[in-house]
Amino acid sequence: MVSGRNEETSERIRLGMVGGGNDAFIGGVHRIAARLDDKFELVAGALSSTPEKSRESGKALGLTRVYDDFKQMAMREARLKSGIEAVSIVTPNHVHYAAAREFLKRGIHVICDKPLTSTLGDAKKLVKAAESSDALFILTHNYTGYPMVRQARDMIADGAIGKIRVVQVEYPQDWLVEHQDFKQAEWRTDPERSGAGGSTGDIGTHAYNIACFVTQLEAESLAADLQAFVPGRKVDDNAHVLLRFKGGARGMLWSSQVAPGNENALRLRVYGEKGGLEWAQEDPNHLWFTPYGEPKRLITRNGSGAGEAANRLSRVPPGHPEGYLEGFANIYGEAAEAIYAHRKGIKPDASVVFPTVQDGLNGVKFVAACVQSSARNSAWVKLE
Amino acid sequence: MVSGRNEETSERIRLGMVGGGNDAFIGGVHRIAARLDDKFELVAGALSSTPEKSRESGKALGLTRVYDDFKQMAMREARLKSGIEAVSIVTPNHVHYAAAREFLKRGIHVICDKPLTSTLGDAKKLVKAAESSDALFILTHNYTGYPMVRQARDMIADGAIGKIRVVQVEYPQDWLVEHQDFKQAEWRTDPERSGAGGSTGDIGTHAYNIACFVTQLEAESLAADLQAFVPGRKVDDNAHVLLRFKGGARGMLWSSQVAPGNENALRLRVYGEKGGLEWAQEDPNHLWFTPYGEPKRLITRNGSGAGEAANRLSRVPPGHPEGYLEGFANIYGEAAEAIYAHRKGIKPDASVVFPTVQDGLNGVKFVAACVQSSARNSAWVKLE
Amino acid sequence: MVSGRNEETSERIRLGMVGGGNDAFIGGVHRIAARLDDKFELVAGALSSTPEKSRESGKALGLTRVYDDFKQMAMREARLKSGIEAVSIVTPNHVHYAAAREFLKRGIHVICDKPLTSTLGDAKKLVKAAESSDALFILTHNYTGYPMVRQARDMIADGAIGKIRVVQVEYPQDWLVEHQDFKQAEWRTDPERSGAGGSTGDIGTHAYNIACFVTQLEAESLAADLQAFVPGRKVDDNAHVLLRFKGGARGMLWSSQVAPGNENALRLRVYGEKGGLEWAQEDPNHLWFTPYGEPKRLITRNGSGAGEAANRLSRVPPGHPEGYLEGFANIYGEAAEAIYAHRKGIKPDASVVFPTVQDGLNGVKFVAACVQSSARNSAWVKLE
Amino acid sequence: MVSGRNEETSERIRLGMVGGGNDAFIGGVHRIAARLDDKFELVAGALSSTPEKSRESGKALGLTRVYDDFKQMAMREARLKSGIEAVSIVTPNHVHYAAAREFLKRGIHVICDKPLTSTLGDAKKLVKAAESSDALFILTHNYTGYPMVRQARDMIADGAIGKIRVVQVEYPQDWLVEHQDFKQAEWRTDPERSGAGGSTGDIGTHAYNIACFVTQLEAESLAADLQAFVPGRKVDDNAHVLLRFKGGARGMLWSSQVAPGNENALRLRVYGEKGGLEWAQEDPNHLWFTPYGEPKRLITRNGSGAGEAANRLSRVPPGHPEGYLEGFANIYGEAAEAIYAHRKGIKPDASVVFPTVQDGLNGVKFVAACVQSSARNSAWVKLE
Repeated sequence: MVSGRNEETSERIRLGMVGGGNDAFIGGVHRIAARLDDKFELVAGALSSTPEKSRESGKALGLTRVYDDFKQMAMREARLKSGIEAVSIVTPNHVHYAAAREFLKRGIHVICDKPLTSTLGDAKKLVKAAESSDALFILTHNYTGYPMVRQARDMIADGAIGKIRVVQVEYPQDWLVEHQDFKQAEWRTDPERSGAGGSTGDIGTHAYNIACFVTQLEAESLAADLQAFVPGRKVDDNAHVLLRFKGGARGMLWSSQVAPGNENALRLRVYGEKGGLEWAQEDPNHLWFTPYGEPKRLITRNGSGAGEAANRLSRVPPGHPEGYLEGFANIYGEAAEAIYAHRKGIKPDASVVFPTVQDGLNGVKFVAACVQSSARNSAWVKLE
Repeated sequence: MVSGRNEETSERIRLGMVGGGNDAFIGGVHRIAARLDDKFELVAGALSSTPEKSRESGKALGLTRVYDDFKQMAMREARLKSGIEAVSIVTPNHVHYAAAREFLKRGIHVICDKPLTSTLGDAKKLVKAAESSDALFILTHNYTGYPMVRQARDMIADGAIGKIRVVQVEYPQDWLVEHQDFKQAEWRTDPERSGAGGSTGDIGTHAYNIACFVTQLEAESLAADLQAFVPGRKVDDNAHVLLRFKGGARGMLWSSQVAPGNENALRLRVYGEKGGLEWAQEDPNHLWFTPYGEPKRLITRNGSGAGEAANRLSRVPPGHPEGYLEGFANIYGEAAEAIYAHRKGIKPDASVVFPTVQDGLNGVKFVAACVQSSARNSAWVKLE
Repeated sequence: MVSGRNEETSERIRLGMVGGGNDAFIGGVHRIAARLDDKFELVAGALSSTPEKSRESGKALGLTRVYDDFKQMAMREARLKSGIEAVSIVTPNHVHYAAAREFLKRGIHVICDKPLTSTLGDAKKLVKAAESSDALFILTHNYTGYPMVRQARDMIADGAIGKIRVVQVEYPQDWLVEHQDFKQAEWRTDPERSGAGGSTGDIGTHAYNIACFVTQLEAESLAADLQAFVPGRKVDDNAHVLLRFKGGARGMLWSSQVAPGNENALRLRVYGEKGGLEWAQEDPNHLWFTPYGEPKRLITRNGSGAGEAANRLSRVPPGHPEGYLEGFANIYGEAAEAIYAHRKGIKPDASVVFPTVQDGLNGVKFVAACVQSSARNSAWVKLE
Repeated sequence: MVSGRNEETSERIRLGMVGGGNDAFIGGVHRIAARLDDKFELVAGALSSTPEKSRESGKALGLTRVYDDFKQMAMREARLKSGIEAVSIVTPNHVHYAAAREFLKRGIHVICDKPLTSTLGDAKKLVKAAESSDALFILTHNYTGYPMVRQARDMIADGAIGKIRVVQVEYPQDWLVEHQDFKQAEWRTDPERSGAGGSTGDIGTHAYNIACFVTQLEAESLAADLQAFVPGRKVDDNAHVLLRFKGGARGMLWSSQVAPGNENALRLRVYGEKGGLEWAQEDPNHLWFTPYGEPKRLITRNGSGAGEAANRLSRVPPGHPEGYLEGFANIYGEAAEAIYAHRKGIKPDASVVFPTVQDGLNGVKFVAACVQSSARNSAWVKLE
């Protein structure tokens, strides 16, 4: 099996990293994801906002080219004969735009964590920066890398459930039930660094993105009721959102960081005129398909009923679960395919799909609209 | 086990029925529910809106006292020495008020199907009729009869999850995915008989009721987005509702009759400052309790962790599932306890709980507010 | 829905009961099961082994004809014009034979709890008694009354999974993890009253019966390893059994009363050349069908994919769970159909199925073979 | 989080591989597992039994040192200054012994796929070879690398469930329901290359190993009933096994390759005097803990209730599933810890645990005993 994987170490993509120092979380995930299928080699980094920490972290990772900041790194790497071809940006949100711009304008591909930016203004500028660059821009809305998410998207495109009527998506967690001081909680609840959205930005954007990615529907407007339940919290920790899609479908979105017992319970349910699909991130290798008037069917990754869109992103046989890191690695895999094609000056195969800078802008618009609607007592706000 | 059950056949309550003729659905359910614990005996009926059908149905049930209509039945039974003590009203919604009034004013207890009435005006009049009668009024929001629903209610009252922040409740079905002609579908999608709400009235009221019953919160206002997805349908078949409760809790409610793969997927999730509770009607013997910072626990009916509120409504040991009919029968069981006490001129024990005419009014207000909010582009509407 | 149910109160079957006094468990279950569909009316009883208790229990149940013992009851009822037509025997196992014999020889139908008897000798005599009587004998292996068990049986008969290769059946509980003194535990762990088997007799017979009922295979031989883990226990509380069926299929059976966390976790899995079926008693409304090379399908009671054999035993729509009592009531329902036919001197419809005295003998043989095999160090013992 | 991980690229262990050429399955898995945490670097290989294929496969992997056969590789690498420190042996079973011996005698650590060998004689010789070498021997019974398997083992060692009574373990699959020709199926059903056991060797050894690993019990004897259901198959494709452990615990083990609907459904349940534990490979991030007389608890990887033994093998937060590859990588991670310690001439920390050559011998004995018992009509066979 290990289907469709090509472990071509000779072609490894030279990768740099901005952020992801010793006490960061998501940087380590990006490094595993980049390494898993052996298509990337991490060779340079500006791993922290302070030069000392950057150097320490670089040393711990065995990197030889460690920079004081991302600007220095972009300038110097661009001049090297074997400088980095791509950079992973894994800083807090408010740094994404400035960092990405430096690499994009030098033709270095950018793989950027979500949400795209902390402000709508930055997001729009980043779209322009990406559009005016020859380099690729990949946003790591990693849940779109799960094979069964691809399977769902493909089935909907093939008409398996008919015209969509209802979209239910939710992402509850419980890690912010109480006030938290540690680093991850601290910047994620600070609007200066994270953006105006709390749960909406951190996980609501994932929920919104996966709903749009799978259904291929465009959201038209939303009405939101945001709360900060924990005293003193400056951003929402719970969001109730109504959605209207172009074409008439309706949706509900719930994001929460204060729902005890929920870890990363992202769940998507889509119902059309002919059937439904249900998927949950915590059980990612399964997809429920509910054709109207027939028994429910459980489709398994790489198993009976799974199609090419899912299988090309699978590594092991059905019943051997793949998880979060494999899904994340699939985003890197798609990025690698696109970069391979870019090397040859061609377009990647149509099957290669990844979240784009436009998806990132849509996510930031989603957060802005949530905040605006909630401030206007849940009035409908357009998403254009 | 068969805990707390007293099969006192000598004291059976004489019961009449309005509606529930041969081709009805819910009438048969009420009869089984009344019979299960042997506390009622069906002795009279006005089983259909046409006298011929009523007689046929009465004969099939072996009834000796069959009436042409509910008024005749109320008048005559009231005069009999051993006339009915209670009546079950299981007609389409628009008949509930007129029928209930006749029995209440003659001191005959009323056990009435939900929603209370098809219009808000009728609901208010019925509240008055009930209040000015010495007779009892029990509304069969049957899901409140499930033991683990009682368990959840009790745990919340005891502070097990702390102050409530978030309520998620949903009731999706799929039986109206397409246009349906058969009797059950026909009157339930006719606003003249069913009321202005479609899914909101038929199942949304159940979801709303169980959320309020379990949390003991009072809803303050709602914002709703209703749809009739199936062409030609006059009432909503899908409803997305935001809720605000007194005290600051927020909620989402989804009712749908067009979600393929969902049968009667009523599900309630409540999250507080200290923990959460999750219950699903299709797996009614289990209750998830998620104390913050501890492993999730699965409480089973009559099993470890279940308390008195649940156990007194259980009949068989844990692991032997009780279902919909047993839960429905528990409403009849509570009604019986209240009627036994009424016979003695006393109040029933404080543990005896059932949905009241006020709960019924709240349900009708809920439907009216949904319709009004949706017509006003999902503006918040007060529930007072 | 309430499909195929006929609430013909005029034709109620007059029922007596032996055993089932105040502090018994299964007697109450039989009474609810008999009452649920309104086809039986309990009119007489010899409810305890002591006349005083029998009278007290009879009074509590509102019975007018209460007897000191079953023999007196059989004799007198047989002479009454409107005496009982059927009797439920719900005593400890060692009384079954003697009681059943009295009623059978007077032409009164017997509905008897399982296992059939406490000894193989009694079982063989009871088979003869039943065969030489015109009356019917129904054994309440109640799990065969679950609609989805019928569905599984029907699908196998129709060839849905091809020739059977493997049968996995288990029934773990945990109520005897420690030594117990209360009445239910006491007689069930006393070989004089319960028989030589402990878990094998009490629940192993259920597991064995359901495996044979669903597959329609005949067991040829078994090899068993029985244990009494709790010090001082005289009968097995855990049994590991290998099975060989005629035609080549192989099986494993596990019964246990010492498996913490298991309530009544009866589970059956059957695998054939073309597919598999999986069913669990604690989730009785669902049946997994796993056709080889296709996605798994979840068939729901009364829902998509369920056939006539299941639907005729269903009362409420899919998604409204039916449970243990409804399944038990289905045995009474089948008994009623057979008795109705017997009244008319005809055979019941071929769809009417219930466990017979022969199934009961097979169960007692199973227990005897388990005990014998275990005593012979798990040697294979024939089941003939 | 990424807890306890140290991405020390400077210390990467130089790794060679025997087997694992282009059309192999498990070789690719080993390579990902070795790479995931960046502690190994694959630098040499003898990837196939034919030199041409070996060279082709080596080229595809970007290896510079590719050998014609494992003997040549062992000899030459041993002489290199920066030759391999460890070798992964991922050939069919019958090659394991000869290959391992060559590396062990040259002081190169061996990471070997399971089962240890295809014959009991080879297994015993390999134990001697490992014992007389200074090099480490690690057997990739990969399921022991799952964090929640470690959690279960730790809880049992801590007495959480008391003295063990019952062990239920099973590993059903369905990939050999019909005759298969492809490479993976072909050698695995050929006793010359796979060994005398079919399902017993391929997956039964996993089940047996994990049961012993978690419980820390030693099996004393077994009784087995093996079948080859598919016509023409030379080795068992279904095995029913009774187990007796030292100290009195009893077990059942089922391995099957002909159970439709089962993918890799390895499941372990252990019951003691005070509680139980249940774990399933297809849902590896959860562990049920069932203390007697209390509600069941669901422990999640890296979440509430999980301890150090599990957390040190976790990479991402709870609710972000880790799967088969991460569990496999944990075996490589433990191997790396042991090799790091070996470099320093010290013992690894006591928390470092991996399956040993002795575990491998136990597995081969298990297969031999199964075959022998089944040939003797399921007589008990000692496992010494």
